[in-house]
Amino acid sequence: MTTSHLSRLYRTSWGLFTDLYQLTMGYGYWKNGMAERNAVFHLFYRKNPFGHPYALAAGLDLVIDLIRNFRFSVDDIQYLGALRAADGKPLFNESFLNYLQRMEFNCTISAVPEGTVVFPHQPLLRVEGPLIQAQLLETALLNIINFSTLITTKSARIYQAAQGESVLEFGLRRAQGIDGGLTATRAAYIGGCTGTSNVLAGRLFGIPVKGTHAHSWVMCFDEEIEAFAAYAEAMPNNCIFLVDTYDTEEGVKNAIRIGRGLREKGHDLLGIRLDSGDLAELSKIARTLLDEAGFTQTAIVASNDLDEYRIKSLKEQGAKISVWGVGTRLATAYDQAALGGVYKLAAIADEAGLWEYRVKLSEQAIKISNPGLLQVRRYSDPDGHPMGDQIYNLEFGNPPAEVINFGDDQKVSFEQAAGEEDLLLPVFQDGKLVYQSPDLHAIREHCLAQQARFAGLLDSPEYTNGLEPQLSVLKKGLVEEAMI
Amino acid sequence: MTTSHLSRLYRTSWGLFTDLYQLTMGYGYWKNGMAERNAVFHLFYRKNPFGHPYALAAGLDLVIDLIRNFRFSVDDIQYLGALRAADGKPLFNESFLNYLQRMEFNCTISAVPEGTVVFPHQPLLRVEGPLIQAQLLETALLNIINFSTLITTKSARIYQAAQGESVLEFGLRRAQGIDGGLTATRAAYIGGCTGTSNVLAGRLFGIPVKGTHAHSWVMCFDEEIEAFAAYAEAMPNNCIFLVDTYDTEEGVKNAIRIGRGLREKGHDLLGIRLDSGDLAELSKIARTLLDEAGFTQTAIVASNDLDEYRIKSLKEQGAKISVWGVGTRLATAYDQAALGGVYKLAAIADEAGLWEYRVKLSEQAIKISNPGLLQVRRYSDPDGHPMGDQIYNLEFGNPPAEVINFGDDQKVSFEQAAGEEDLLLPVFQDGKLVYQSPDLHAIREHCLAQQARFAGLLDSPEYTNGLEPQLSVLKKGLVEEAMI
Repeated sequence: MTTSHLSRLYRTSWGLFTDLYQLTMGYGYWKNGMAERNAVFHLFYRKNPFGHPYALAAGLDLVIDLIRNFRFSVDDIQYLGALRAADGKPLFNESFLNYLQRMEFNCTISAVPEGTVVFPHQPLLRVEGPLIQAQLLETALLNIINFSTLITTKSARIYQAAQGESVLEFGLRRAQGIDGGLTATRAAYIGGCTGTSNVLAGRLFGIPVKGTHAHSWVMCFDEEIEAFAAYAEAMPNNCIFLVDTYDTEEGVKNAIRIGRGLREKGHDLLGIRLDSGDLAELSKIARTLLDEAGFTQTAIVASNDLDEYRIKSLKEQGAKISVWGVGTRLATAYDQAALGGVYKLAAIADEAGLWEYRVKLSEQAIKISNPGLLQVRRYSDPDGHPMGDQIYNLEFGNPPAEVINFGDDQKVSFEQAAGEEDLLLPVFQDGKLVYQSPDLHAIREHCLAQQARFAGLLDSPEYTNGLEPQLSVLKKGLVEEAMI
Repeated sequence: MTTSHLSRLYRTSWGLFTDLYQLTMGYGYWKNGMAERNAVFHLFYRKNPFGHPYALAAGLDLVIDLIRNFRFSVDDIQYLGALRAADGKPLFNESFLNYLQRMEFNCTISAVPEGTVVFPHQPLLRVEGPLIQAQLLETALLNIINFSTLITTKSARIYQAAQGESVLEFGLRRAQGIDGGLTATRAAYIGGCTGTSNVLAGRLFGIPVKGTHAHSWVMCFDEEIEAFAAYAEAMPNNCIFLVDTYDTEEGVKNAIRIGRGLREKGHDLLGIRLDSGDLAELSKIARTLLDEAGFTQTAIVASNDLDEYRIKSLKEQGAKISVWGVGTRLATAYDQAALGGVYKLAAIADEAGLWEYRVKLSEQAIKISNPGLLQVRRYSDPDGHPMGDQIYNLEFGNPPAEVINFGDDQKVSFEQAAGEEDLLLPVFQDGKLVYQSPDLHAIREHCLAQQARFAGLLDSPEYTNGLEPQLSVLKKGLVEEAMI
């Protein structure tokens, strides 16, 4: 069962969800008789986001949903037919548009499952199929994988900073667009958030939704205590009072007063929330007041521009906060609002169907793309700890257990490895879906397990990641050839 | 005619596009018999984004579309009915859910038209209506207005840096989600971009779409010149060659060679594109090569992590660039990925229907919200130049032409003003749409005219913006009262 929302939420066909140059290139391939030549592209990023030692792949389920709806409607084709070039003549001719409309997706795609730890240069997706199809998918794949991977990684950082305490995602009001909010909520849940305020995401994805009241509730009454009493009357089983509308300490005392009444009726004061001021200091005062009044189980929820840095700092100051409400800085990945994932051609079949390998040159060696039909193998030691990753070319057969490490260009051997796994799994085979997405809760569990498995990298971020030596030789040869 | 895309693109009802606490508060209002009391909320921000001297309001058309589809479907109600509180009992009771499902939107909303210059604390939207409805709308209004206003302002900054040269928006691949990309493209067009690579946005909004080819096109051929020739053969009327796949100078020369052939066939070399390296230096080399070969009209398009800072710097270095392709940093507002707009209660009717004014306190005086039913009046001098803005309370009648300026708390008089206009226009009256949105091109023209009108602020950013004196007195009184 798919947990994604595109086809449930959107009424569009997805062929036009692309950059125009994918279509003009598509037209060029078609006119040159190259449209159906087999090609291989990889989607990867070059630098871990936020200075984290790794990223967490996400977005695959949305990709699957999009690809299953990747076609051009009659309206789409009409729109394309009406586009004009600079000289006023149609950009595309009619038989190309007919070709597009009849096109049936038949690529073969492999991908790293959502929630898996990945490293720079490793393909998160490999697309093999007719050149035109693989090209047309580029923009959509990048849009989805870049954003979901970014937010899942950000969420993991916040989850790690919270050290096992609950993190709630509250970012919808400042998320980048409607779907920005929905996709961010989904990705944040995978990374470690325990719930969200986003009700539509709750309905679409089955994510637990949380919420009680805002300042406006308190402001609708003459006195704060009156507001708390009215809320307790209406929802006695959902009382987390926001205590900082006027005076925080007074607010906590009012919450306690109402909490006593709740207990008399068999309920309890579940929590109080702090949304401004010195959260470390105020949380200590609140904890003391609550404990002295016998509300030792009452949670202290904090919000207000939180992120992993602020949470870490509050913890160092001894803040007594048990639930972290994180909004803008999570849902927009505020300190790095985009992942720079790219999608590069790595091989194209010649007219006889044999692979010609390709690299994209760059003045910076690390930006040169990798040729081949790539897979990533992860080696582990006898205790199951990851030792390092190897990018290898499937066309060369089963790889030797060694790599040329990207970081220092040194050869590293995994001969002592006790286990190995290939990260990319088959998703589409000749256009047919062959992958069963886990449900979103299982994806989240997998992501938490991955974080635990790579916890050592948080203190000591060195990790071996490189090309299998024969692939490294192939790449060097292609670079030299292209530079002549 | 509406230019927005929500109802064309999405198949959802929008009642659940909210934070859960809006619904739990709504339940509380309903249980306390307050749900239908009249209330007034304002949406405003407190600080201009990017250090710009103003922001450009945007998103209203999307808001209109959302509100017209703001209801709860049977599925939505079932979902809410299945939500459980901490004690396992339903969060909402059945008669409240029936009430929600029958609820008919009948708020009165005024708003600043899209593309208009606005300043901190000024309401971009005023919502007056039943407390529960105005509360439920909060999240959606903030989500839409925050993001669109942010991107339109960012786009204006880039448009201003380009000093009349063309700016194309290329951000879809790294935008925050699918709709993040669509909404960003729409907002970027309003702010000044002349076109986009985003084809779906082109179809939905009628924005001009642009694009030719990427590196992958060149990499599909054995030689770059072969790639250019094949492209010219396929699309002779759309030739802008990306020249930096291998060696940029060589690439320009290859483009010129193919350009000569194009001319022989009655076409022309429209442009070349640079996407890496030292853009200032490479553009000068390219310009010289093109000019010497007689291609003086051939455009030089540049892309690669551009924004207003980079464009300004490249211009200072004498770069010969005539079209700017701007992606990630525009579509995600990379250096400030969110606008911190808020939505605050400003008045609520008592049981007799009389307004009780409200302020939200804060330790920082500038964060205290403004009470009343607010309108913004902009005064201009006899030459039509803006002199300053006044926030006034409609309940006090026509305001005197003076304000207490936020910046320095000094009284400023607009007695010399020759003109005045009220910025917020009626949009919904008792739930009925009374506003005719201009089409997107007209919105863009308005936005460019507004930027021209406020061009003086770019050099000298001081601008009077404050409360009408009687409103200022009202606010002070409410703050003192609340602090007792």
